[in-house]
Amino acid sequence: MDTVRPTPRTTVRQRPDRGSYDRAVIDAILDEGLVCHVGFSVAGAPCVVPMNYARVGDRLVLHGARAGRLLSALAAGAPVCVAVTLLDGLVLARSAFRHSLNYRSVVVFGAATEVADRAEKRAALKAILEHVVPGRSRQVRPPSDGELDATTVVALPLAEASAKLRRGPPVDLEADRAAPCWAGEIPLRLAAGRARPDAGVAASRPRPQPPALPRLRPRRAAGRRRAKR
Amino acid sequence: MDTVRPTPRTTVRQRPDRGSYDRAVIDAILDEGLVCHVGFSVAGAPCVVPMNYARVGDRLVLHGARAGRLLSALAAGAPVCVAVTLLDGLVLARSAFRHSLNYRSVVVFGAATEVADRAEKRAALKAILEHVVPGRSRQVRPPSDGELDATTVVALPLAEASAKLRRGPPVDLEADRAAPCWAGEIPLRLAAGRARPDAGVAASRPRPQPPALPRLRPRRAAGRRRAKR
Repeated sequence: MDTVRPTPRTTVRQRPDRGSYDRAVIDAILDEGLVCHVGFSVAGAPCVVPMNYARVGDRLVLHGARAGRLLSALAAGAPVCVAVTLLDGLVLARSAFRHSLNYRSVVVFGAATEVADRAEKRAALKAILEHVVPGRSRQVRPPSDGELDATTVVALPLAEASAKLRRGPPVDLEADRAAPCWAGEIPLRLAAGRARPDAGVAASRPRPQPPALPRLRPRRAAGRRRAKR
Repeated sequence: MDTVRPTPRTTVRQRPDRGSYDRAVIDAILDEGLVCHVGFSVAGAPCVVPMNYARVGDRLVLHGARAGRLLSALAAGAPVCVAVTLLDGLVLARSAFRHSLNYRSVVVFGAATEVADRAEKRAALKAILEHVVPGRSRQVRPPSDGELDATTVVALPLAEASAKLRRGPPVDLEADRAAPCWAGEIPLRLAAGRARPDAGVAASRPRPQPPALPRLRPRRAAGRRRAKR
């Protein structure tokens, strides 16, 4: 459980020093991301679709409209590749070539299976909602039987997965280091703006408040946290 | 040039109202994104890799280490699918089922060709750097011949592409609208934090400044701009 055994396709070949097969590292990236990119084949040609997801223990769960060709392919056990990428910063070097990005990414290979059991399906959909907005499932109407039927849920085991990470400052050639330009890292993060209530919300008594989203905390707090490293 | 002709695989089938084949819409999304996800096949199985890129007119250009299997496959003309996804907000409805994300995404299908001509290759690499940090190519050392040789650059035409977008508030069932929970949109954006100069930068005279990044403007300014809509 602690480490995922590398396979030929999860072994990080370019910059192996950036690879990790540690489940704690992989899980943390998956738990922070909001969108994954799912690769599958359509008539032999690759197709990539962004999707919402959640990690539930040793599996990723994905959901979508029952009618869609993507969910049909996934539920049928087609081979898939799921990538989650968190962009952490721009890395500005003194030479064009040494510019880079700081990131944490995960790739998962395998075949999904449909989650058909209704209790498991409800639990997976709840996990996806809670992944995006913790605590939200206690505030809203759960799926009706009809809504559950209209949705396909699939699960992909985290059996074949790896992470790849870059962090830190630019790595310039010694000969470039005296260049007079600015160089360094510009941190990036996904940040929440001011919540916009839907029509009717402001009129409720007592007036409900938008949920706290600790992962999408204000930029200033992030700057302070990082500055402490 | 104004509209891309839809093909079976670029036609938006789920929620066709969210699809766009307008090059202005497609280009704006491609020009705002920093990372794309490239799907290709390895031994018949899908593989998805995050990459940096730029749009140069009617083509996407991608680059990477010459030694890599991804760039080798792309340069050899393997079929690819490139997805760029911008996450614009969380959409919180009164029912679990109606929760959504606001996003703008583009998908491009096709086969890339290697950019072998050295002048074209230099121009493509410059475009990728300028895409991330406008003006940066004038401040830094350009690629040496050896660095150029170590890099593979490929170009993918925007001939088969479409966009998909969701924006706006949740769409709740009438029966759910009296629920006492908060509902609405929480805008999200990629934001830059405080730049961290590399060792040696602060000692330069005159002290160089980090570049302005208008796309990654501070959160407060974004809130104001959006509030005017």
